[in-house]
Amino acid sequence: MTRELIISLDAMGGDHAPDIVIEGASIARERSPNLEFLIFGDETRIVPLLTRYPILKNCVEVCHTDKVISADEKPSQALRRGRDSSMGQSIQAVKDGKANAAVLAGNTGAQMALAKFILRTMPGIDRPALATLIPTSRGESVMLDLGANVECDENNLVQFAIMGAAFARTVLGVSKPRVAILNVGVEELKGSDVIKEADRMLREANIPMDYRGFTEGHGLGGGEMDVVVTDGFTGNIALKTAEGTAKMIANLLKRSLNESAMSKIGALFASSSLQSLKDHLDPNNHNGAVFMGLNGLVIKSHGGATASGFASAIGVAIDMAQNDLAGKITRDLTNFNSAAEDASVTEKVPESLNDDTVVEMNIKEQK
Amino acid sequence: MTRELIISLDAMGGDHAPDIVIEGASIARERSPNLEFLIFGDETRIVPLLTRYPILKNCVEVCHTDKVISADEKPSQALRRGRDSSMGQSIQAVKDGKANAAVLAGNTGAQMALAKFILRTMPGIDRPALATLIPTSRGESVMLDLGANVECDENNLVQFAIMGAAFARTVLGVSKPRVAILNVGVEELKGSDVIKEADRMLREANIPMDYRGFTEGHGLGGGEMDVVVTDGFTGNIALKTAEGTAKMIANLLKRSLNESAMSKIGALFASSSLQSLKDHLDPNNHNGAVFMGLNGLVIKSHGGATASGFASAIGVAIDMAQNDLAGKITRDLTNFNSAAEDASVTEKVPESLNDDTVVEMNIKEQK
Repeated sequence: MTRELIISLDAMGGDHAPDIVIEGASIARERSPNLEFLIFGDETRIVPLLTRYPILKNCVEVCHTDKVISADEKPSQALRRGRDSSMGQSIQAVKDGKANAAVLAGNTGAQMALAKFILRTMPGIDRPALATLIPTSRGESVMLDLGANVECDENNLVQFAIMGAAFARTVLGVSKPRVAILNVGVEELKGSDVIKEADRMLREANIPMDYRGFTEGHGLGGGEMDVVVTDGFTGNIALKTAEGTAKMIANLLKRSLNESAMSKIGALFASSSLQSLKDHLDPNNHNGAVFMGLNGLVIKSHGGATASGFASAIGVAIDMAQNDLAGKITRDLTNFNSAAEDASVTEKVPESLNDDTVVEMNIKEQK
Repeated sequence: MTRELIISLDAMGGDHAPDIVIEGASIARERSPNLEFLIFGDETRIVPLLTRYPILKNCVEVCHTDKVISADEKPSQALRRGRDSSMGQSIQAVKDGKANAAVLAGNTGAQMALAKFILRTMPGIDRPALATLIPTSRGESVMLDLGANVECDENNLVQFAIMGAAFARTVLGVSKPRVAILNVGVEELKGSDVIKEADRMLREANIPMDYRGFTEGHGLGGGEMDVVVTDGFTGNIALKTAEGTAKMIANLLKRSLNESAMSKIGALFASSSLQSLKDHLDPNNHNGAVFMGLNGLVIKSHGGATASGFASAIGVAIDMAQNDLAGKITRDLTNFNSAAEDASVTEKVPESLNDDTVVEMNIKEQK
């Protein structure tokens, strides 16, 4: 791991920019001494901050720009005027081969729009997806899409499954990840037509994954699957519901443990165990969502992440850059598509069949 | 509260039927001495159980039927052959005015199909919805739809909002419930067209609710809203994700507290506080989902509920029956629809306007 890795950073994105970004970079550099940074943003604010972190002295290049994408800017506005912003330029650095990956906080819609516009989607991918790791009682699972696409068709979902499986093989280190589609029940007859068709396509596909059919919301926290596939609307709501529920329970637990002298003593005795549980559930420790399916790596950090959380997102970028995520996806997509082509050839109607049979087969295919 | 209330029960539904159903009835009767029961199912199994609960001696009528809807029966099968099953007959008892409400466990799809077929939807409601109470850090919120309708249009969502608000006024005792639609962001430009249109309609509606626009998954656990409206697909997944997350954290907490001698001592001191937290989060204590929008009350219990959980579902039936839920919904729907009619009258184009103006207005309406 001696090869240098260059990460481009938008210093101006997120709730506590640029402080958190620079501090996060220093933490990441402590963990991975082969890191270098291209930092885009207002140099009058960045340079004074850099002096606080001597570890960053010889591994940072600051690229000044006044232009910043604000948190409430619409994706269409970001596209019109955002290419020379700190966000746009940090993505452009990946496109130009100057950086191995970009790590950005802040306005997700603008990030998605600019990343898609500048990097373009990989061949065979119709729409990129936002994927992240979620904590489970067994460790972590990959979930996607988390909000990049509000409405998805069956091909999108199949592509998400292929990309999610590649993510899991890269980051979780499982050779045949268990993959499932999120649904309202595990029976094949449940759910929308889009979901049922995606399920059928994945059952027949020959890709390095252990496809398990449908999974329900109950199973997310249990870590029954390595990869959970869903449309961006449902994924966004499921992820935020899980985070909100965890926060609610943490608050109720804190309140309960402050209720009486007895419970306060109990909390004191159990404090180190409770802290390790808190750490496992802290979104900062699972920070770093990946825009999958682009010709280049862009990692999104939570807008409200801590410096340590931002460093986790940089860690995801390192994993992805060093483990050839893009190569895995391209190979699996090629296999999937060539298998689908083979199948369509063998499904062609033999000449000996009469018209009635052909009509019947057409009807079946249209279903 | 001296008026008698008659609840019909499907003794054969749920994972632990009929035992849990009969024991649950006995617990409910202890809590509400004015209760009477019509119990449908296999009398050779029900009657011996009844002898264990003397409290049920003079308030139960057993109606024998051999026919049972199994857990894996499809809604269409249930409709074809389920009307004289224990499930069908307990709903029919509500239709015939013999019972104030039916409480059923087991096969949700079959319940929905039979309830809708036997009771029919209320005037003005296109589709019934399944609503339930969810625990929050402030108390409870109402959420609907939880799986009755996989795909919904804007009118469905508006009707769900009206029904959910009536539920909250009945059970939570708030006069102007805070109502919001679940979405991937709180800005008006986010989400699908269906959601945006439902949002617009509710903003303009004059009904007894404090309509707040969109809410995100994060807000569910915090209890920011009294009523959360969503389609059945998203609602089902959000609810199960919340339950699954709560279970995951409970397991992790248990494991953490068993980690060391110190943490075990801590758990012992804090045990009563931890127990009250566990009780608040136990789905059995929030059991009882309501099929809203039917001409009659049908309450669904979790299939895996405990006897105490089944008694909670009966408690919801009592609340609903005594507080004129149906009347509230009918009044609000009538007000909403007449206001919409008034608005469409005033929106008619005055004759003095020229064609260009008319074209422009049409375009705006189509957006």
